Amino acid sequence: MLANLFSPYSAAIGDPERESFEELLRRPNLRIERIVSMGQSSSPGFWYDQPHGEWVVLLQGSAGLSFEHEQTERVLRPGDFVDIPPHCRHRVEWTDRDTPTIWLAVHYGTLDENAVT
Amino acid sequence: MLANLFSPYSAAIGDPERESFEELLRRPNLRIERIVSMGQSSSPGFWYDQPHGEWVVLLQGSAGLSFEHEQTERVLRPGDFVDIPPHCRHRVEWTDRDTPTIWLAVHYGTLDENAVT
Repeated sequence: MLANLFSPYSAAIGDPERESFEELLRRPNLRIERIVSMGQSSSPGFWYDQPHGEWVVLLQGSAGLSFEHEQTERVLRPGDFVDIPPHCRHRVEWTDRDTPTIWLAVHYGTLDENAVT
Repeated sequence: MLANLFSPYSAAIGDPERESFEELLRRPNLRIERIVSMGQSSSPGFWYDQPHGEWVVLLQGSAGLSFEHEQTERVLRPGDFVDIPPHCRHRVEWTDRDTPTIWLAVHYGTLDENAVT
């Protein structure tokens, strides 16, 4: 079982085209996961619109995060965190192409227990 | 407001003898905080015995963590995480004396809303 956030990630080894999502903890109204991105971004025109809140920190790599209600993209570097309230529409514009981008996401509130990610 | 986990910490600047606790997010049954230790440890014979769960990851520095039900201390390095269930008695044996130790703690479950840490 994964016990270190910087340990090897299946996506980087198996399929560099695919992002990796690993659940680290699941409790009522709480799900903590590690996400590893390898240059992926949200599809053009796609916005995440989640019924629950998500507190997320970038720990390695870098990424551009956009919020529909903001004019300019936020660039996240290691250690940067942001709280995304329920139904706050956002998208990942880009992630680092040279270094795996490691995210730690804390999903909270009313979670869809059937959702995989 | 703090927006980066590795940004300067008040304890390191103001009082090197004191650990720093900063709340990053508070929601029903959830509290996320950054803790910065500067060589501190739990008092001799003291055990944390929390009514709620705590998922914690060490992001910088190092520390020795003991659980009452385990024979040997766990040494945590950057990226190492552990889930501490409610009433799982534990203590911090030591933290790095040369490098500030940065913890990210996710407290979950039935929280004492009056507790500061």
